[in-house]
Amino acid sequence: MIKVMATGTFDLLHIGHIYFLKEAKKLGDKLIVIVARDSTVRKLKHEPVTPEEMRLQLIKELRIVDEAYLGKKDDMYDIVIDIKPDIIALGYDQIHNEKKINSELTKRNIKSKIVRLSKSKNIEDLDGTRKIISKIISAYEFQKNIEKIEEK
Amino acid sequence: MIKVMATGTFDLLHIGHIYFLKEAKKLGDKLIVIVARDSTVRKLKHEPVTPEEMRLQLIKELRIVDEAYLGKKDDMYDIVIDIKPDIIALGYDQIHNEKKINSELTKRNIKSKIVRLSKSKNIEDLDGTRKIISKIISAYEFQKNIEKIEEK
Repeated sequence: MIKVMATGTFDLLHIGHIYFLKEAKKLGDKLIVIVARDSTVRKLKHEPVTPEEMRLQLIKELRIVDEAYLGKKDDMYDIVIDIKPDIIALGYDQIHNEKKINSELTKRNIKSKIVRLSKSKNIEDLDGTRKIISKIISAYEFQKNIEKIEEK
Repeated sequence: MIKVMATGTFDLLHIGHIYFLKEAKKLGDKLIVIVARDSTVRKLKHEPVTPEEMRLQLIKELRIVDEAYLGKKDDMYDIVIDIKPDIIALGYDQIHNEKKINSELTKRNIKSKIVRLSKSKNIEDLDGTRKIISKIISAYEFQKNIEKIEEK
């Protein structure tokens, strides 16, 4: 049985996430998803909109997901040691450096293979979390401008 | 087999939606979810952040959901005639008026029972779509204010 591990923040779940998880699952038999801790999200990206426990709960509700866990707080490779995945799937837009991961895995004597997935050609414009946030902010700015015009 | 129907917009899927769908499913054996059309959302609430096809796709990915369809464009009761649910589950915050629905069902000779679900005591603050949107806007306003202060 080939175990595939995929990691992500999964803040504001969208079809881009589903595509990533489906492509990851195709690489093996069992999909194990690691949901990034709030503390990790803050370090790497920004303040998460949804807290880690809720992001994990929602991921567990997906048909495609066999198991899901929160990441470890200190060494992000600790969870890889626990799970021993045959494959670690990276999304097309995930910033992780494959060489760096490979060297960290070798140091820890982990034999997982890294697979970088490609971008879907079919995903429409509104797929990413940042795009969703931008759309909400644009709608908000638009509404504020309308209100300003109406006040005049 | 008891067929339960639940309807909603499901824009920015969150744990509150999952709770609603799980409570609905408990009422029977099969959960059929109707995802509101963009045109219906515009009429009743606001411009949806996510287009109808993507909202439907995401709902179909949930383990709890047995079947999912988009609503009908003209008469919202047409889909009820198609599905013939034994039970129609209403979320605690869904604005539908039970008496009105009952009279519309009777007119169409549909015998579905309406069940109004209660609010979860365990859902944390950040559950609703409007709360998610408010949080994004607050973070944006905060960022803009910080930038203004830094410019001075």
